[in-house]
Amino acid sequence: MEQERYIDKNMHALVSDLQKLIRQPSVSAKNLGLEECARLLVQMMKKSGIKAEVLHLGKKVPPVVYGEVKSRKNPHKTILFYNHYDVQPEEPLELWNDPPFSGKVRGNKIYGRGSADDKGELVTRIKAVEAFLKTTGDVPCNIKFLVEGEEEVGSMHVEEYLKKYQKRLSCDGVIWEFGYVDEKDRPIISLGMKGLLYVELSLKESVRDAHSSLAVLIENPAWRMVEALRSLRDMNGKILIKDWHKEVESFTREELGVIAQEPFDEKSFKKEYGITRFVGNKKGLEIRKAVVGDPTCNIAGLSSGWEGPGAKTVLPSKASVKIDFRLVPKMDPLKQLSRLKRHLKEEGFGDVHVHMIHGEAASRTPISDPFVKVVKKAADESFGTSIVSVSSAGTGPMYSFSKVLKAPCISIGSTYVYARIHSPNEFARIDLLKKTTKCMCKIIKKFST
Amino acid sequence: MEQERYIDKNMHALVSDLQKLIRQPSVSAKNLGLEECARLLVQMMKKSGIKAEVLHLGKKVPPVVYGEVKSRKNPHKTILFYNHYDVQPEEPLELWNDPPFSGKVRGNKIYGRGSADDKGELVTRIKAVEAFLKTTGDVPCNIKFLVEGEEEVGSMHVEEYLKKYQKRLSCDGVIWEFGYVDEKDRPIISLGMKGLLYVELSLKESVRDAHSSLAVLIENPAWRMVEALRSLRDMNGKILIKDWHKEVESFTREELGVIAQEPFDEKSFKKEYGITRFVGNKKGLEIRKAVVGDPTCNIAGLSSGWEGPGAKTVLPSKASVKIDFRLVPKMDPLKQLSRLKRHLKEEGFGDVHVHMIHGEAASRTPISDPFVKVVKKAADESFGTSIVSVSSAGTGPMYSFSKVLKAPCISIGSTYVYARIHSPNEFARIDLLKKTTKCMCKIIKKFST
Repeated sequence: MEQERYIDKNMHALVSDLQKLIRQPSVSAKNLGLEECARLLVQMMKKSGIKAEVLHLGKKVPPVVYGEVKSRKNPHKTILFYNHYDVQPEEPLELWNDPPFSGKVRGNKIYGRGSADDKGELVTRIKAVEAFLKTTGDVPCNIKFLVEGEEEVGSMHVEEYLKKYQKRLSCDGVIWEFGYVDEKDRPIISLGMKGLLYVELSLKESVRDAHSSLAVLIENPAWRMVEALRSLRDMNGKILIKDWHKEVESFTREELGVIAQEPFDEKSFKKEYGITRFVGNKKGLEIRKAVVGDPTCNIAGLSSGWEGPGAKTVLPSKASVKIDFRLVPKMDPLKQLSRLKRHLKEEGFGDVHVHMIHGEAASRTPISDPFVKVVKKAADESFGTSIVSVSSAGTGPMYSFSKVLKAPCISIGSTYVYARIHSPNEFARIDLLKKTTKCMCKIIKKFST
Repeated sequence: MEQERYIDKNMHALVSDLQKLIRQPSVSAKNLGLEECARLLVQMMKKSGIKAEVLHLGKKVPPVVYGEVKSRKNPHKTILFYNHYDVQPEEPLELWNDPPFSGKVRGNKIYGRGSADDKGELVTRIKAVEAFLKTTGDVPCNIKFLVEGEEEVGSMHVEEYLKKYQKRLSCDGVIWEFGYVDEKDRPIISLGMKGLLYVELSLKESVRDAHSSLAVLIENPAWRMVEALRSLRDMNGKILIKDWHKEVESFTREELGVIAQEPFDEKSFKKEYGITRFVGNKKGLEIRKAVVGDPTCNIAGLSSGWEGPGAKTVLPSKASVKIDFRLVPKMDPLKQLSRLKRHLKEEGFGDVHVHMIHGEAASRTPISDPFVKVVKKAADESFGTSIVSVSSAGTGPMYSFSKVLKAPCISIGSTYVYARIHSPNEFARIDLLKKTTKCMCKIIKKFST
C-alpha cells in the first residue's frame, strides 16, 4: 500500500506537527488557548489537503474545527473522525519532568499534556487522509472531521453542534477520538463508553472562617461533608443512593462472551499504579466486568480550610467536593442527579448545595454492526492482532453521536494504556502513532469497498 | 493618673506604630518577614525607652524579641509581658476588603492581619511602659517583654527560649499575649488556655493521579480518608478515639461557680457567625462549659485531587487532612497522639500517615491566686467592669510559662470578640486599644504596691 510507504517516509512531519499542537496549550477547564489551538489546527489540516474551517455556536462556546474531503470516485460513503483539541489541566506541575507543554521527544516518546489525549490521536487521522491525498490525489470515501474543544470538561455543546450541523456531519460510521493499546501492543477496539454525572457539592455553615477554638460551638462544614460523603457508598465502593442501579441491565450473553475474552494483565496494571490490590479485592473476570459495566462514585476533589504548609487553626466556613459518577447504559444523568439530591435530603444533608457540572449518558455500538468487522480487520493487519471491548471505562459524548447521526461509533487509536493521560508526564509512543496512522488508512480503504 | 493623660494625648502615635507593625508581614506558617518584623519591633521598643534586643536559638528558629526596663524604686518585683509578632496566613485573599497588610484605618477600626492578634495587643503593652517612662522617668516595677515569632504555628521553641533564658525572664507574674473584650465592652480576664494537638493525616494509594474511570479498580485515598475521619467522632462532635477523655477531670466547685457567672450572648454570637444553632444543640450553661472545658476534634483543612474550577475527572493518588484537637488540663499531647495512631490502626487505617505538626498541654492559673485580684481591679477601673473566665477556648504555650517561670499567667487585653482574628478583615478597635493601654498601666502600678 503506497500510503504506508508515504507514512514511513513522513514520520518526522507527523512528530513535528504533534509537537506544534502540544506547544499550543488548550486547557478547556481554564478556557486557555482554545481559539488559538483551533486556528492552528485549521492551518495544519489545510496543509494536509483537508478543507477546514472553524465553526462557532456563540461567543462563549469554544469553536469546533470542521474538516472535509470529498471523494471523487466514491462520494456516497462517508467516514467521520471525531476528535478534540482541548486538553486536561496540567497540574500538578511539580511532578512533570519537562514543562507540560514542551512536546519533548525522548527516544520513542513524545511528552506533554495532550500528546496522547487527544492531539496524538488527531494527527494520526489527519496524516492518514494526507497519505491518500498526496499519493493518489483522492480519498477512497468522503472524509469528515469534527474536532471539538470541550471534551475534557464534558463536551457540553457537542450535541448542539451535531444538531445544528447535522446535514454537514452526516456519515455512515464514526471513528472515535481515542483508542487504547495494551501493554502487549494490542489495540483495543472499544464499542462503547460509560456515561458521567459530574457534580460539585458545597456546604457553607457560617458566614466566614473562624478561629478553630470555636469548634465547640460552630458546626464544621468539612465534618458534615464527611458525613454526607460517607452516606453515599460503603467501604467496598457500593453506591448506597436509593434506586441508583434501578435501570442497570445485566450483560447480554454476546457481551459476556466478548468480556470473557478481553485480556487484562493484573500484574502489570498493579505495577504501573503501584497498588497491591484492586478495589473490593476484585479478581479475574470480575475486574473486566467492572471496567466495562460498573457504575462508580469517585471523589475527584476535596477542598476545605487551610491547605497550605504548616498549621492554621481554622474552622472553615465552607467545604466542597467534586464527584464523578460513571454511568452505564440506561442510566439517565438527570434522573440520577435527582436521586442524589433526594438521598442527601433524606439523610439530613438538604443544605448541601448540589451543582451539576455535567452529565452525559452511556452508549454502546452493537457487537454485530458490520463496521466492527471493518475496524477489526484493519487493526489486525496493522498491529498483528486486536481486542474487541464492549465498552471503555471512560466517558465521551458517544450517546449524542449515535442519537443525532445514527451511525455506529468505534474507538480505536494509538494511546498506550499507561500513557499517563490526565496525569503528569503524559506521552505518546511514536511507533504506535505510526501503526495507528496506517490503521486509519486501512479502515478508510476497507470501509469504502 | 498622669500616664492616662499621656496615653490620651499620644493615641495617634500608638495607631501609627501599630500600622507600621501591620505593614511588615510576618507570617510564621510561610516563614515570611519574621526577622524583619523582629528588628522593626526592637527599634520601636527602643524608641519607647525599653532596652530591647533580638535573641536567637539557631539560624532556623525565628528570633524572640526580649525587652527590659529595670525599676529604680522597686527592683524586686517583676512583671513579664508575653506577646508574639508573628501572624496567621492572610488567605483567603479574595475576602479582604483592603489588602491584608494595609493597616487601613476606618473610623474606630484599624484593619489588617495582626491588627488584633497580636500586634494590637503588643503596642498596648509597649505604650503603657512608655507612658511611665515619659511621665516619671521610671517604672513602678521591673518590666520584661518576651515577644516570640512562632505563636501562630504552635510556639515550638518558646519553651526552649524560656529554659535557655530562664534567669533573665524570671518574674512574678505574666500578662498573656491577648485578651478578649465581649460585645458589651467587658474585658474577659482569662486564667487558662486549652492545649492543642495539631496533626496532618496523609494517605497515598497509588503512585500517581489516574484517570477517574479507573475508580472501579484503584482505591481512592479521598474515600478512605473520609472513612478514617468518620471513625474519629460521632455526628454530635463526640470524639470516639479510645481513652481520649481518660485523664479529663470535672470542674471544681469554684470553677463551676465562675463559669456560671460568665456571660455569653448567644444571640449576638449566632448573628456574628450567621448560624442558627450550636454544635450538638448546646444551650445556656452547656455552651459556657464547652468553651472552657470541652476537648475538640476540628478539621482545619481537607485536600485531595482537583480543587480548581470546572471538572477534572481524576482519581487522586493522595489525600490529606489537617486536624486540630483542643486539649484540656491533664491531657498529654504525646499520649493523645499515640491514642490517635492506635485508633487508626485498629480501625484499618494503619496506612494513614500521621504527622504531628505540634502539641502543647493546657494550663490554668488558680482562681485564688493574688495576681487575679490585681488584674481584676485594674480591669474594673479601666473598663468599668470585667469578667473572670476559668479558661479561654484557645491555645497558647501557657503551660510552658507556668512550668518554667513558676509565675501566674493571666490573659487580659484589647481584642474585641468579633475582631475576626485568623479570618479576613481582622481589625482592632482604637477605643479598646486605648482602654487596654491604660489598664496595663494600672496593672503595673497595682502589682508594684
